Amino acid sequence: MVRGLDLCQDAIGKLSFTDYFYLLLTGHQATPAARAVLDATLVAIAEHGLVPSVQAARMTYAAAPEAVQGAVAAGLLGCGSVILGAAQQAGELFDAIERRTQEQSEELDRAAHVVVAEYRTAKRAIPGYGHPLHKARDPRVEALFKTSREAGAGQRYVDIAEAVERVIPAVMGKDLRLNVSAAIPAVLLGADFPLKALRGVPILARSAGLIAHLFEEMNHSIGFALSYQAARNVEYQGEVPAGFREQRS
Amino acid sequence: MVRGLDLCQDAIGKLSFTDYFYLLLTGHQATPAARAVLDATLVAIAEHGLVPSVQAARMTYAAAPEAVQGAVAAGLLGCGSVILGAAQQAGELFDAIERRTQEQSEELDRAAHVVVAEYRTAKRAIPGYGHPLHKARDPRVEALFKTSREAGAGQRYVDIAEAVERVIPAVMGKDLRLNVSAAIPAVLLGADFPLKALRGVPILARSAGLIAHLFEEMNHSIGFALSYQAARNVEYQGEVPAGFREQRS
Amino acid sequence: MVRGLDLCQDAIGKLSFTDYFYLLLTGHQATPAARAVLDATLVAIAEHGLVPSVQAARMTYAAAPEAVQGAVAAGLLGCGSVILGAAQQAGELFDAIERRTQEQSEELDRAAHVVVAEYRTAKRAIPGYGHPLHKARDPRVEALFKTSREAGAGQRYVDIAEAVERVIPAVMGKDLRLNVSAAIPAVLLGADFPLKALRGVPILARSAGLIAHLFEEMNHSIGFALSYQAARNVEYQGEVPAGFREQRS
Amino acid sequence: MVRGLDLCQDAIGKLSFTDYFYLLLTGHQATPAARAVLDATLVAIAEHGLVPSVQAARMTYAAAPEAVQGAVAAGLLGCGSVILGAAQQAGELFDAIERRTQEQSEELDRAAHVVVAEYRTAKRAIPGYGHPLHKARDPRVEALFKTSREAGAGQRYVDIAEAVERVIPAVMGKDLRLNVSAAIPAVLLGADFPLKALRGVPILARSAGLIAHLFEEMNHSIGFALSYQAARNVEYQGEVPAGFREQRS
Repeated sequence: MVRGLDLCQDAIGKLSFTDYFYLLLTGHQATPAARAVLDATLVAIAEHGLVPSVQAARMTYAAAPEAVQGAVAAGLLGCGSVILGAAQQAGELFDAIERRTQEQSEELDRAAHVVVAEYRTAKRAIPGYGHPLHKARDPRVEALFKTSREAGAGQRYVDIAEAVERVIPAVMGKDLRLNVSAAIPAVLLGADFPLKALRGVPILARSAGLIAHLFEEMNHSIGFALSYQAARNVEYQGEVPAGFREQRS
Repeated sequence: MVRGLDLCQDAIGKLSFTDYFYLLLTGHQATPAARAVLDATLVAIAEHGLVPSVQAARMTYAAAPEAVQGAVAAGLLGCGSVILGAAQQAGELFDAIERRTQEQSEELDRAAHVVVAEYRTAKRAIPGYGHPLHKARDPRVEALFKTSREAGAGQRYVDIAEAVERVIPAVMGKDLRLNVSAAIPAVLLGADFPLKALRGVPILARSAGLIAHLFEEMNHSIGFALSYQAARNVEYQGEVPAGFREQRS
Repeated sequence: MVRGLDLCQDAIGKLSFTDYFYLLLTGHQATPAARAVLDATLVAIAEHGLVPSVQAARMTYAAAPEAVQGAVAAGLLGCGSVILGAAQQAGELFDAIERRTQEQSEELDRAAHVVVAEYRTAKRAIPGYGHPLHKARDPRVEALFKTSREAGAGQRYVDIAEAVERVIPAVMGKDLRLNVSAAIPAVLLGADFPLKALRGVPILARSAGLIAHLFEEMNHSIGFALSYQAARNVEYQGEVPAGFREQRS
Repeated sequence: MVRGLDLCQDAIGKLSFTDYFYLLLTGHQATPAARAVLDATLVAIAEHGLVPSVQAARMTYAAAPEAVQGAVAAGLLGCGSVILGAAQQAGELFDAIERRTQEQSEELDRAAHVVVAEYRTAKRAIPGYGHPLHKARDPRVEALFKTSREAGAGQRYVDIAEAVERVIPAVMGKDLRLNVSAAIPAVLLGADFPLKALRGVPILARSAGLIAHLFEEMNHSIGFALSYQAARNVEYQGEVPAGFREQRS
């Protein structure tokens, strides 16, 4: 029995993996809207090319092929505050705004303005807004919002996310667009996904992406080549760290 | 573009997470049968109560709550050869039998007998057979086989798995039933899941289970209590490891 | 060449491991006082019995014996903010007090009072003070301070640490004694050990302790027994987490 | 009490970290020869520039700076069979030869010849011999052997290691010189270091090296730059992995 269901009668062959993940976290079954939104967020961030955590995983596998689980773990250890933690933080921002609208009976844009201004005063970045490359919204944002609308999921946190985007120019003095780290909690919180579990979504998604990269690494190893190229370029550019002379044990 | 699909047009909102995992691994889209079988295997092994890897993850989170990813990684590090590696190894056993039937034109039971006898000669355990608790087949086996049949997935590796079960008594001198670690490759290989990627299925499944346990740990911490109980019992039973006197830093 | 030394001529056979660690971190050779103090801190916290991180490592090794490095890694992942992070945080507290005495020309107890009061206002615990079991100072504190004095290491940060202990009753309304997490930065900062590298001392020390536990685990496995006892007791006490029924895959 | 010593009276301030590590592993105190040899091996392999495991650790820290322990763990996960496991395996080779000389009363070179030939027959590489770059012996080998001789440590396993080097050309048909992975067990086994604990020596040594790199990373971050250079070069060479288009989330 898991969460009131019989594993063999009610879950295996009946629930999708995404349904089951939702069930394990929340204790109740996913609605079609919740399933659609959770699948969409997991798909949106599972794979992103040779990002640092993937490189770390592939180098680890090349050095320790006896332990695939160690290479996946090495990759997940890079799913931290800088790269994938923003989804959780953006969810907390939206939650603070939502609570303020309820507790203070403030209108949404007013509450968003106040909370964003508090972040600015505390010199905190606005998590989930702005992107190093894109000036427009990341196209994954629109794909996630469209999925949420069409599935009939709650739109309250999408509205909050867009309110934050609207008030940012006035508060921060620059235009920062919603990125995928804000879109994820915007659609998931509207599907009754628990706030504190948001952190798990990028971790699960990246587990899948890492496993796929490691399968590729088994068949076509680039782990050591990546490392060689990375270090060679450090040398070329004159940034030679101490002890850099010898390259490999 | 990922594997020939446009992420935002063709994947987000269109593919389930399971579909996408299959696509990343194989480069082609899952058939309905492949999706059904892969979902079923992931559901079957995602959650198994307070197994050692879950305890390790919960203790790690209690001690280092700043890094959820570290606690998930600690749990995955225990998904090794003893606990979850058998699915991969059982797949290799089935693959060896299948290749033998093709290369030697042997009948299935004959090929199974020869390969199982080779394992016995090499003093290797038969991966995926036998269970510390159940004498009958683990009920998850039947649930997986039923899902595979009803979805119309290939049954060749289910047949091989059952042939192994049939020949074991004669070769090994005891009756060992198919367990879930043999059922997983039996159904997945029939759905064109790649042999070398089998190792990734329990890892992804347990990532989901670990995240759910850590969400529970955030809300109701038992990590240190588990550790206290574990160590107290060691003391009670007289197995006091060196340096055991002081309990906590 | 490492940090200006020839590895084979000047380091191997000439420097102790502790000397070399100090050299790698600071770029200059350890004085006898620095060596004595760094050795003492590493010895003080390397081993502490079956603490949670050791249990996590032993369970991980039992499940994945193909990868000792994975079991050490699992143990280190529990060396986080709650258990071993306090040494770094206490060092930052002492550094803030020291800077205040210099920048504001305040006397030590005055500066300590102000900074501790700031922690209280911010509702932050005073890192390195108080102990769940000992009301008196942990005996390791005195051993570390004695080593530092006898080696002739700088005593400034020991003085600061004791000033904090003196002002705590007035500011916090209770008596909290210096524990080992405060003693470590107190003696290391006086030996010119870099503030930001303090975090590495418990990590290196515990690596040694974990390796010793895993060697013991290889010879006398208790990993699964610990896990069984931990979970059994949860059951006994009625705290049965979801999905707890089945015990092992 | 740890291994019969009082931690505060007999260990802190009395034993070096290396002494204490030896004590934890063996249960008895290191002789001066054992200490010298263990220090030398730890120093020899602690730091080796921007090797893959260091890159993995620095990328992990850049992405997840909230958890130094996670970055150290990520680096250690790459200390596997390919890179640092050979010291353990070479120790097992030497042990097999030594047991053969005793059990079969064979002369050393004869026993070495037989055991190396068994490796060849089983198509196993000779662990600890040969080097991708050096044709001569790695200079660290001579430094370790010199330390061992001058400290008065047992030379039996050095003799065995050199016997293996002598018989390799006749058995393997090529000249492979002793590398540092063979020198480590050669000197440690002569100092009564336990065979099964050899695996811990590179792990502890690299922990120190990783901590030093991460301290450098805190002060001068190259983690993301390494990753960028590594991936850029993959692109330049036409080896574009699937999904490589977008670079960072």
